[in-house]
Amino acid sequence: MKKISDSTISRLSTYYRTLSNLIDQGIETVSSDEIAEINNITSAQVRKDLSFFGSFGKRGLGYNTKALREEIAKILGLKKEWNIALVGVGNIGRALIDYEEFRKQGFIIKALFDKDRKKIGKEIKGLRINDIDDACYVTKEKNIEIAIIAVPAKNAQAVVDSLVACGIRAFLNFAPITIKVPSNVTVKNENMSIELEALSYYLTQSN
Amino acid sequence: MKKISDSTISRLSTYYRTLSNLIDQGIETVSSDEIAEINNITSAQVRKDLSFFGSFGKRGLGYNTKALREEIAKILGLKKEWNIALVGVGNIGRALIDYEEFRKQGFIIKALFDKDRKKIGKEIKGLRINDIDDACYVTKEKNIEIAIIAVPAKNAQAVVDSLVACGIRAFLNFAPITIKVPSNVTVKNENMSIELEALSYYLTQSN
Repeated sequence: MKKISDSTISRLSTYYRTLSNLIDQGIETVSSDEIAEINNITSAQVRKDLSFFGSFGKRGLGYNTKALREEIAKILGLKKEWNIALVGVGNIGRALIDYEEFRKQGFIIKALFDKDRKKIGKEIKGLRINDIDDACYVTKEKNIEIAIIAVPAKNAQAVVDSLVACGIRAFLNFAPITIKVPSNVTVKNENMSIELEALSYYLTQSN
Repeated sequence: MKKISDSTISRLSTYYRTLSNLIDQGIETVSSDEIAEINNITSAQVRKDLSFFGSFGKRGLGYNTKALREEIAKILGLKKEWNIALVGVGNIGRALIDYEEFRKQGFIIKALFDKDRKKIGKEIKGLRINDIDDACYVTKEKNIEIAIIAVPAKNAQAVVDSLVACGIRAFLNFAPITIKVPSNVTVKNENMSIELEALSYYLTQSN
């Protein structure tokens, strides 16, 4: 399979949501033009993105919404549940524990970590807060595959290093720094300013 | 100016961060190849994105990091501070009040809203929590330009409708639903599952 760009992957996530919404509305077929219009991109882009994975649609007939969503789910690895560790039980961490979209998409927070002695041993939503020093033991026991990093910037690299040493290969990083990892490990950064900057752009251009 | 795609705008935000990091490290020039490598995209993409705005770099000499960051800041509207209203002071809302990246990029939360009688009138970080019913008065008084929606999905459309009626034209939406707005209003959705889905994809493809 060809190497697929990050922006294609991100658009596939968007198409997945679009299809889920259409299915919820009882809509059975959709054209690339319609998917494009809902998401404010060109239909050529939609067709190009989907062409990476072979041909799902029939010319002139559009795509079957359920079949296409199923294919995208397979590609994105959404046909299984993923066990997630959340590191850092501050404000962002607590918000993420409550974030229902994660569970809906099959991302299940199974372990919490912090290094604050006052938090360790307490429970949130039935999950015990573990000492980050026990990371290897707990991540193995709970079969953790992805870690969410919600610690202060100054601690983030050290936390990731220790989890990489435990065998974790995928990180979602909320700390505003660039994390260095070996080439077989993937870090995605969640920077909530980026969408605000897009709004700032639109307001600036339209004034 | 040509219509620029959302993904170009989002990459400009990424380049802005890359340049800030390079400047912090004392680096004065950078090539499109280097910007591309840091961000795991092609240098052709970098050059194409920057070409929308004219020519900043000199062939063979690369870009001056400070000058390029300045140009991108102008394009994205980051040369001014933006006054933000945050609607919904639950877990996500509280996390966003503490999110230092917003302030760093010039997005200043100036007004808080909720509809919970127990919260209204209280203060968080020196900001009073206002009744959402007073939205028009408060947003005008505080010169609010962008609203962040951190309310439950079932309330999000109504909240946005009332703020649109007050003249707010830009929204960052954390609620997991599609918000309908008039064509002169922009909504960006913050869906934190999307980056997790990219990780799920990478783990699936590499297994």
